[in-house]
Amino acid sequence: MAIKRRKVSVIGGGFTGATTALMIAQKELGDVVLVDIPQMEGPTKGKALDMLEATPVHGADANVIGTSDYADTKDSDVVVITAGIARKPGMSRDDLVATNAGIMKAVTKEVVKYSPNAYIIVLTNPADAMTYTVYKESGFPKNRVIGQSGVLDTARFRTFVAQELNVSVEDITGFVLGGHGDDMVPLIRYSAAGGVPLTSLVSPKRLDAIVDRTRKGGGEIVAYLGNGSAYYAPAASLTQMVEAILKDKKRIIPTIAYLEGEYGFDDIYLGVPTIVGGDGIEKVIELDLTEEEQAQLKQSAESVRNVMAALPKA
Amino acid sequence: MAIKRRKVSVIGGGFTGATTALMIAQKELGDVVLVDIPQMEGPTKGKALDMLEATPVHGADANVIGTSDYADTKDSDVVVITAGIARKPGMSRDDLVATNAGIMKAVTKEVVKYSPNAYIIVLTNPADAMTYTVYKESGFPKNRVIGQSGVLDTARFRTFVAQELNVSVEDITGFVLGGHGDDMVPLIRYSAAGGVPLTSLVSPKRLDAIVDRTRKGGGEIVAYLGNGSAYYAPAASLTQMVEAILKDKKRIIPTIAYLEGEYGFDDIYLGVPTIVGGDGIEKVIELDLTEEEQAQLKQSAESVRNVMAALPKA
Amino acid sequence: MAIKRRKVSVIGGGFTGATTALMIAQKELGDVVLVDIPQMEGPTKGKALDMLEATPVHGADANVIGTSDYADTKDSDVVVITAGIARKPGMSRDDLVATNAGIMKAVTKEVVKYSPNAYIIVLTNPADAMTYTVYKESGFPKNRVIGQSGVLDTARFRTFVAQELNVSVEDITGFVLGGHGDDMVPLIRYSAAGGVPLTSLVSPKRLDAIVDRTRKGGGEIVAYLGNGSAYYAPAASLTQMVEAILKDKKRIIPTIAYLEGEYGFDDIYLGVPTIVGGDGIEKVIELDLTEEEQAQLKQSAESVRNVMAALPKA
Amino acid sequence: MAIKRRKVSVIGGGFTGATTALMIAQKELGDVVLVDIPQMEGPTKGKALDMLEATPVHGADANVIGTSDYADTKDSDVVVITAGIARKPGMSRDDLVATNAGIMKAVTKEVVKYSPNAYIIVLTNPADAMTYTVYKESGFPKNRVIGQSGVLDTARFRTFVAQELNVSVEDITGFVLGGHGDDMVPLIRYSAAGGVPLTSLVSPKRLDAIVDRTRKGGGEIVAYLGNGSAYYAPAASLTQMVEAILKDKKRIIPTIAYLEGEYGFDDIYLGVPTIVGGDGIEKVIELDLTEEEQAQLKQSAESVRNVMAALPKA
Repeated sequence: MAIKRRKVSVIGGGFTGATTALMIAQKELGDVVLVDIPQMEGPTKGKALDMLEATPVHGADANVIGTSDYADTKDSDVVVITAGIARKPGMSRDDLVATNAGIMKAVTKEVVKYSPNAYIIVLTNPADAMTYTVYKESGFPKNRVIGQSGVLDTARFRTFVAQELNVSVEDITGFVLGGHGDDMVPLIRYSAAGGVPLTSLVSPKRLDAIVDRTRKGGGEIVAYLGNGSAYYAPAASLTQMVEAILKDKKRIIPTIAYLEGEYGFDDIYLGVPTIVGGDGIEKVIELDLTEEEQAQLKQSAESVRNVMAALPKA
Repeated sequence: MAIKRRKVSVIGGGFTGATTALMIAQKELGDVVLVDIPQMEGPTKGKALDMLEATPVHGADANVIGTSDYADTKDSDVVVITAGIARKPGMSRDDLVATNAGIMKAVTKEVVKYSPNAYIIVLTNPADAMTYTVYKESGFPKNRVIGQSGVLDTARFRTFVAQELNVSVEDITGFVLGGHGDDMVPLIRYSAAGGVPLTSLVSPKRLDAIVDRTRKGGGEIVAYLGNGSAYYAPAASLTQMVEAILKDKKRIIPTIAYLEGEYGFDDIYLGVPTIVGGDGIEKVIELDLTEEEQAQLKQSAESVRNVMAALPKA
Repeated sequence: MAIKRRKVSVIGGGFTGATTALMIAQKELGDVVLVDIPQMEGPTKGKALDMLEATPVHGADANVIGTSDYADTKDSDVVVITAGIARKPGMSRDDLVATNAGIMKAVTKEVVKYSPNAYIIVLTNPADAMTYTVYKESGFPKNRVIGQSGVLDTARFRTFVAQELNVSVEDITGFVLGGHGDDMVPLIRYSAAGGVPLTSLVSPKRLDAIVDRTRKGGGEIVAYLGNGSAYYAPAASLTQMVEAILKDKKRIIPTIAYLEGEYGFDDIYLGVPTIVGGDGIEKVIELDLTEEEQAQLKQSAESVRNVMAALPKA
Repeated sequence: MAIKRRKVSVIGGGFTGATTALMIAQKELGDVVLVDIPQMEGPTKGKALDMLEATPVHGADANVIGTSDYADTKDSDVVVITAGIARKPGMSRDDLVATNAGIMKAVTKEVVKYSPNAYIIVLTNPADAMTYTVYKESGFPKNRVIGQSGVLDTARFRTFVAQELNVSVEDITGFVLGGHGDDMVPLIRYSAAGGVPLTSLVSPKRLDAIVDRTRKGGGEIVAYLGNGSAYYAPAASLTQMVEAILKDKKRIIPTIAYLEGEYGFDDIYLGVPTIVGGDGIEKVIELDLTEEEQAQLKQSAESVRNVMAALPKA
């Protein structure tokens, strides 16, 4: 049997979805199908064609198409869901829940219909509750439905630390647990520069400021943009997760994973360190937490449960 | 003396400028300064910060800042000008001239002030006349002021041919002369797939259709998007030109170059094959043209002169 | 079903085989198994471990193992055969036939046993006859047994032209037919710099010198090395072919392909332009040749038949 | 002034030097000059030409030449010294000292003569004493003479840990101090997988085994090869250091640095964590060590001093 190019569908042709499609094509990870609603079919096709026309310059063979027809997503290896209404300045994440949960259900039905063996990555906010919604709607095993937030949070954290120390971003490692934004639980003791714990290199006051800035990282971009939210770093984070699956890299990255007892939680999607490879979330890594961290994680989980309470009943 | 990272400033923080900044950072070609007018400072800073926060995921060390202060562009190695109002559906290129020429002059003054040794690449439409404007305003030698259009046109052409033949984009070469869009002079006899002339592989009728689609490539995207114009492939094209200079690659690529007698033209910027390396346009390659090609190129030059006639007098 | 990393086995742990394994790992194309005879197991394991230890620095996840046990090659997607005795200074290609054909048969038996669905790429000299031997021994369909020579020959040609013109290697295209070395049929009229035919850019005398140098390219390296033959460019060429298959790129590249009537030849492996993708040689491209080219190709085929005459009978 | 391609000279055309040259060219970091003694000029030219002929396939513009004439190294930005006799099975590092110190002096004279502003990276064993020799001979400031050992040691350590945990090599960080091999001081508490300290993930017994294997990593390869020593991972490590300087990355990597009081040592080259950027070793990072670590480092320094005692007097 001939070797086939991998196929990734990105649901939602807004800035994040489109930029994710671009990055997947640039890295030649596979062919890309960018999907949006029929009313947005024109712009979706336009963006896809534009990025296809960039492939000769990138030297990358990747077909990129825009569509509103889920039949075009047939037999995708990975599906990335970015669809949903965006967080606007001042809007709480909870406000998004009802609308986006409805979108998740509609999208998931179509995804499952055409790609019953796909791995699904969910970005849509609030990501914990949305990933849970996709999981329930899909009927997929838990390892095949994964939420994004931690890769982005650590990317921001790493950026701020690299700037603080004026060193390469390649040598900064960061580590977060729990929810996105306010509910983020940063594990500073697991963050390092070239292996050296940050606590040896950065003053507690500056570290606090960096953690605080990371927590509010999404809001900082929103405030700058005035209209819309971040998409470059989110797209890069999604692309890294897609790559981890398609190349079976077994990356140790924080993802929003379904917990069944781990860290003392059950039937919830929560940000935890995981191993992501060719079978999706291959493992949840359980750490010994300090009491303070455990308390913060519990609070984070409660926030998620609060949001989940706003989910429409099936 | 310590080795310094290269520095590239991108003027214009719209989609094309921002995407160009992203791609330069992804390829670790140097630090990037994204510049827009004071009224757009927020979004410009927001986009720059967002793409900076992606660098840890890309594994690329490149500082990216957004600003409205040209002082931040000081000592740039290369400056890319994307500023200007965009072409809207139905708008002729000529309508853009007066406004964009004014923008070019203002931008060039600032660029020259802070980076007197830079190489300048101009994308703003109509690119031939705008590059001419920047050249005159800058007082730079001709090799250091370069217009973009042919890399993009050939990228589109290559994409369409690769699709037609269902082969790798890497193996298609294309070749265009003259202006962008309607004034493009495609040299089909110099276009090939894996070295095989396209005329042996594609029927004349299909080739005509591909050439026609390439000519209208910008308009096709505009029509799809409804609002705005292409930016992914233009950004990739600009990035390739930046790379050719910063790495002194001596690429043979079609650019908008200042002619002093070549092809029988004088004191005009026109799309011709050139060698682009560490000293900008290091050479204009002169080809023997058929009578038909020569006639088309002349017509293209006349179109450029018509646009130039609309340039405000100094 | 979980997504599995691709798997490539490289038979022959000498310089070319080892360098090919390195490049496949660097590009993260898949896991690599480097195989040599039991007497060479130590060095083979040593090289594989050494290149595995480089993967953290490359940032590439690819397992690399050295072995003498073909069971380790089980279920390879692609198998590259570099095994065989090397051409020594002054040795004709024909001298290699009997020995290397025996090696091909033994290797093929093992490859087929463990990877009945693999695509096989043959480098071993004389490549035309050795690819034929592997084809017959394997019982595989013709598209799944491919010989290498043209990618290397064009790489050398492109290098010399780029030097001659002092331009980027990226913009030179070359084109060869027929056998390796003396029997190479260069199609100068299909070779270009930035799309411009070389005949417009380089004098006939210099072009002749470049063609002649390309023909003797292998010998030039052999003479320099004193002991052994080229391996960097051959390994890069093999890696490009592996990539074309694993990423289903549909590259238009010259390969040694089995002909059944194409170009008027039958039951012979000969260097011709082909499309290489996820199903191996997906197409042989037939060109209209001039009488002179046709005569040269016929002579090339006769040389191959002469070599094949020296093949041991099954 | 035109932008010039960077230039790197690699002294020593053996396996490590040649593979380093290859990797620098593959990454398009600059032009490469591979230098060996006049008696080896043929093979050196042959290897260089062979890797040059691979550049069209890599799509990389980098001139690579082989030479025995140091005039060809003129104005190098970085010089990598790999020359010297290799460690053979059973040979102690001290046996190499006298011979290799003589080679260092001769090489350094030539390097300094032609590239008075270069940054020098030394690989030759025993690297601590050889880097010291080059430093003294060159008269260069300490930041411009750097020894390699820690990048390689951590690469090996990271490989073994990634295998142990079956996770991506990208997510393992390692940390070593002191000398190469037996004198290596691994700081396990600073080593992590995805930020999680290894002590939480790997049993002490297995960790000890991994540390021990890392210490003997060079010997393991030597034993496998039978003849010669490792070169793939050493070359990758050198290339990373070259890249850190040429791109001013400010990597936090362990290098052999000249100490003037740091860690309590003076006038000695010793493996310590450093920041490497456009000005070479821009900083030595001083860590609080445990008593045990301090003791080990002292022992490591004593070993270095013992070796230095065998250095010929100037």
